[in-house]
Amino acid sequence: MQLIFLEGYPGMASADPKVTLNDINASAERLKNWGRWGADDEIGTLNNISPQDIVNAARLIRKGKVFSLALNFDNQGPQNGRWGNRFNPIHTMLATGTDAVAGRQESVGLRYADDMVSMPLQCGTQWDALGHVFFGEKMWNGYDARLVDANGAHKNGIEKTKDKMVGRGVLLDVARHKGVESLEDGYGISTAELEKCAADQGVEIQRGDFVIVRTGQMERCLKAGDWGGYAGGNAPGLRFETAEWIRRTDMAAICADTWGCEVRPNESDVASQPWHWVVIPMIGISMGEIFYLKDLAADCASDHVYEFFFCAPPLPITRAVGSPVNPIAIK
Amino acid sequence: MQLIFLEGYPGMASADPKVTLNDINASAERLKNWGRWGADDEIGTLNNISPQDIVNAARLIRKGKVFSLALNFDNQGPQNGRWGNRFNPIHTMLATGTDAVAGRQESVGLRYADDMVSMPLQCGTQWDALGHVFFGEKMWNGYDARLVDANGAHKNGIEKTKDKMVGRGVLLDVARHKGVESLEDGYGISTAELEKCAADQGVEIQRGDFVIVRTGQMERCLKAGDWGGYAGGNAPGLRFETAEWIRRTDMAAICADTWGCEVRPNESDVASQPWHWVVIPMIGISMGEIFYLKDLAADCASDHVYEFFFCAPPLPITRAVGSPVNPIAIK
Amino acid sequence: MQLIFLEGYPGMASADPKVTLNDINASAERLKNWGRWGADDEIGTLNNISPQDIVNAARLIRKGKVFSLALNFDNQGPQNGRWGNRFNPIHTMLATGTDAVAGRQESVGLRYADDMVSMPLQCGTQWDALGHVFFGEKMWNGYDARLVDANGAHKNGIEKTKDKMVGRGVLLDVARHKGVESLEDGYGISTAELEKCAADQGVEIQRGDFVIVRTGQMERCLKAGDWGGYAGGNAPGLRFETAEWIRRTDMAAICADTWGCEVRPNESDVASQPWHWVVIPMIGISMGEIFYLKDLAADCASDHVYEFFFCAPPLPITRAVGSPVNPIAIK
Amino acid sequence: MQLIFLEGYPGMASADPKVTLNDINASAERLKNWGRWGADDEIGTLNNISPQDIVNAARLIRKGKVFSLALNFDNQGPQNGRWGNRFNPIHTMLATGTDAVAGRQESVGLRYADDMVSMPLQCGTQWDALGHVFFGEKMWNGYDARLVDANGAHKNGIEKTKDKMVGRGVLLDVARHKGVESLEDGYGISTAELEKCAADQGVEIQRGDFVIVRTGQMERCLKAGDWGGYAGGNAPGLRFETAEWIRRTDMAAICADTWGCEVRPNESDVASQPWHWVVIPMIGISMGEIFYLKDLAADCASDHVYEFFFCAPPLPITRAVGSPVNPIAIK
Repeated sequence: MQLIFLEGYPGMASADPKVTLNDINASAERLKNWGRWGADDEIGTLNNISPQDIVNAARLIRKGKVFSLALNFDNQGPQNGRWGNRFNPIHTMLATGTDAVAGRQESVGLRYADDMVSMPLQCGTQWDALGHVFFGEKMWNGYDARLVDANGAHKNGIEKTKDKMVGRGVLLDVARHKGVESLEDGYGISTAELEKCAADQGVEIQRGDFVIVRTGQMERCLKAGDWGGYAGGNAPGLRFETAEWIRRTDMAAICADTWGCEVRPNESDVASQPWHWVVIPMIGISMGEIFYLKDLAADCASDHVYEFFFCAPPLPITRAVGSPVNPIAIK
Repeated sequence: MQLIFLEGYPGMASADPKVTLNDINASAERLKNWGRWGADDEIGTLNNISPQDIVNAARLIRKGKVFSLALNFDNQGPQNGRWGNRFNPIHTMLATGTDAVAGRQESVGLRYADDMVSMPLQCGTQWDALGHVFFGEKMWNGYDARLVDANGAHKNGIEKTKDKMVGRGVLLDVARHKGVESLEDGYGISTAELEKCAADQGVEIQRGDFVIVRTGQMERCLKAGDWGGYAGGNAPGLRFETAEWIRRTDMAAICADTWGCEVRPNESDVASQPWHWVVIPMIGISMGEIFYLKDLAADCASDHVYEFFFCAPPLPITRAVGSPVNPIAIK
Repeated sequence: MQLIFLEGYPGMASADPKVTLNDINASAERLKNWGRWGADDEIGTLNNISPQDIVNAARLIRKGKVFSLALNFDNQGPQNGRWGNRFNPIHTMLATGTDAVAGRQESVGLRYADDMVSMPLQCGTQWDALGHVFFGEKMWNGYDARLVDANGAHKNGIEKTKDKMVGRGVLLDVARHKGVESLEDGYGISTAELEKCAADQGVEIQRGDFVIVRTGQMERCLKAGDWGGYAGGNAPGLRFETAEWIRRTDMAAICADTWGCEVRPNESDVASQPWHWVVIPMIGISMGEIFYLKDLAADCASDHVYEFFFCAPPLPITRAVGSPVNPIAIK
Repeated sequence: MQLIFLEGYPGMASADPKVTLNDINASAERLKNWGRWGADDEIGTLNNISPQDIVNAARLIRKGKVFSLALNFDNQGPQNGRWGNRFNPIHTMLATGTDAVAGRQESVGLRYADDMVSMPLQCGTQWDALGHVFFGEKMWNGYDARLVDANGAHKNGIEKTKDKMVGRGVLLDVARHKGVESLEDGYGISTAELEKCAADQGVEIQRGDFVIVRTGQMERCLKAGDWGGYAGGNAPGLRFETAEWIRRTDMAAICADTWGCEVRPNESDVASQPWHWVVIPMIGISMGEIFYLKDLAADCASDHVYEFFFCAPPLPITRAVGSPVNPIAIK
């Protein structure tokens, strides 16, 4: 596998580089899941969920309490033009109550409102599809990256997961575990810390889990009333070495309350989002980002139950490489 | 309440008018739920779901089998320009694998794809919010219809339901009950027939249920490879009088595999979608439309179990009067 | 005519209020052009241009030198979310050269690129249509404001002017006349100053002219590399009393290098954009905003010729209340 | 130069193939203008226009009569989903008069309407930029086709022509010359015919001209009230061999009242739009399509003057490969 050499990119770690291209290559080869679920697989680690896992997860619904893990989608969202071409959702009306009352709909015979939205699929609470990130010239399961063209992802599109995002959810509330409201930007969470957090919370990551990491960063921004660099700037997050943990545990998906799950500034001088390079295209993990965790975390802290039923169906937009989502946790 | 008098509207029933404005007014007054859950309520019959209902519904997850009830969202959808300004989803790419491989992303340090969508919120599988349909100058719970303006629904927006669309689902497979692949366009389903269908299926509609009616129309169109008049043309569907059944059963929501749930041509000369006039603004029921039911219905026919866990979280688009959705049924 | 009373609006002049509702009402009545060109007119002062004016204007083409007065349309534009729901243009690709070279278009038989744009019609260099601003419940020529509904402007749409934006252009370079690079924000330009500027420049405003005022504000922002409050914040611009001058001169249109032509903070405590209240709906003048004037102004300063042929065709978007435009001045 | 071999593409000429890949290659090499205006040129044959040409063209303004050559942009446009991902313009309102009158804008202090559009840049009356069509792996002037990526055309974008679309226009009314209302679909117009038409009309194509060909096809569709296959289906148009004429005459641009200027079905079994392959990337000609010519043509027939002043400024959308346009002809 050929890798590009980068002279440096905007926002890379300015000092103490840790992750080299050799590290990334070695990790990629070691953790690679290609072919594990057949040559034509397009859903990766979502295969780790069995029907029995879903039945078991249903038993976690004990209080009938429902949590939405989505930010509302509107023009107050975190996008700031800093990264890529993403923008906040644009919601416009196709028909209104003011029209109805003004008598402008008489010919229709129905008084109604109607509306539309234009939005990047990863502008808010979201799933990354497996076609979202490439490694060299390949994507998940070895498909050619060029199969994602201007007509979309001819392999590994989000629509392939339309009935797969159901199972046991586990919250790892690292911020609360560390006794802080929010981890600091640039704070890298290690595997050891994740495991200690889980142990302290009384849960164990199992095969097929949806694992959700709370750093507190989003709540910090919401409290400040200022997104700052939330979208594409610095953030607390998972260290590069946690890729091994993701592969070893055979979880179904990894989610967080940050823009990109992994720590920023990144741990590398030669790659942006080095952990992404490995976990999406090589391990084949689905990733949830910009999850709103405040209410769920408070409830878990209150009843000391950090596992729950999780259902987060993506919009099956054909050939899309992501989807906005309203993830639901139920206890 | 003042009602508009219509001389006639495009597509109204051409013969044998049944439902008059007096009928609509009388039905509206009789079934009105305004104030039932407080003067500031914005979710209507979703209040009928209790935490215990959710716990009970979870016990219906016995096989760990998941069904997506969404059509894929793409330019092959049912919209045809016939009704309103709706169009099929426009999915475009912001970054591609062909760019990545061509070396056009070297300055980013990450090889990735990204995308966006523009879509009417009710162009495919969808929830209607309570702000979608008005009665005279009012909407659900008596709010002024003019509170839905070019900036959206300042009351009764879909975001108010973000953690509410969870509970017991019940399929009423009327087409199979009648022994046909699809009911014919214009066929009106009566309350008596719905009740007989439920009894034959061994289920009873309970307070807080998500009731899903299958007419077979969507599957007929998909089989033909031609949507024809599916969006806004003729269709099988619920008769006007079923509004009473909806109110009496205290269900949480009503859904169907058609564009608009109710029979078309409508049963009225003086109103378009007369059943909508009553059930959304007066009863306050959330409505699901364009649901894909083929696989779920086949499974129910096979195991004779027509109830299931249902989770259909809307995208909480702020002040929206609808939302695309990927409804999930789990048995 | 009934006028709304405003307790105060965000951004109104905080001290020394000059323009009252009585002033606005009086000015509106005095300057009103309704009916002047017939009860069914939808183009207002564009009627002031005669064919002979166009023939005469053509004689101003002496050097064959062409000036584009448009800013480029892209995501670096002036919109900042400060005012209304406007955003900068979103340009996305439907087909790319990277796809072509990657062999992703072989089935088409043509290697090509294609693209689309989403943009508010007044996000950059623009024409305001006569349906853009209302006075009480009316718009230009007395049409009911409610004729502009969610389906657009059923009267006074921009498409009515599709072959009208041609004639003599005159630059009034007020900034250069005052000997500054840019007038300061909040600086109100009076009629006397406009007339003195014209006299010093050796031009006279004539019936049917396209009059273009340069404040230098845009160039100041471009030089600073920061739009700041350009879109909807403070700005130099025309004083309220210049409405009389606009009416008296019978010009065809008024344009400027600012977001809104008139001075901000506005001269009123009780109205936002009080000059707009009068000049668009009552006088019926077409307004050009966000014009890029640097190169044209430099040429005029150099050859002391401040008149030119002007051609600024709007996109005839049906029922639109504005249009992006690339105005062309030719000397 | 490497060319792709096509086994056949949808819509290619089914019988009597005339143009082979060898023909295309030979024509491309023979007519190539690369480097003619410098290695960094991005506007091609628009360089053929001199300032004196513009001065001369101004003298054609004798009556002061203005013609808009644009179709209105709306959802009744010619796009039908047949070709590419193009759709008709979507015009939506951001603020309305119904809101204003309903008192929903009181906090703004201004009663106004505002709107936006989403549209493919080539969905209606349009300019093709020089980055629109590729030859092998190259575009105009030898630039790499991969410079047109998901971020747009880094070379040969439409914004480079923002002050270039001005000069003498010449109408070649081939339909009227042939004595028909409209040429038939599939009718190929030859150079000899174009030259005879010009001679009969008393005009001669000169260096730097904007040449506009009328086939009558658009008017036929408009009269029928049905676009049929106008966008991407069969059409009358220029024959492949007219590429030589385009190169020889050194015109500035070529325009027509059809979707794609050249005859369809195409004259080739191995290429779609073979004339495009040559004239855009090799000759470097700007192309105008979907021009509305009825009124201009009637006037030319009436006064026997087929030349006029032409001003058709594109919207300078940064890095775009096309632009909607309202072309103006003035006599």
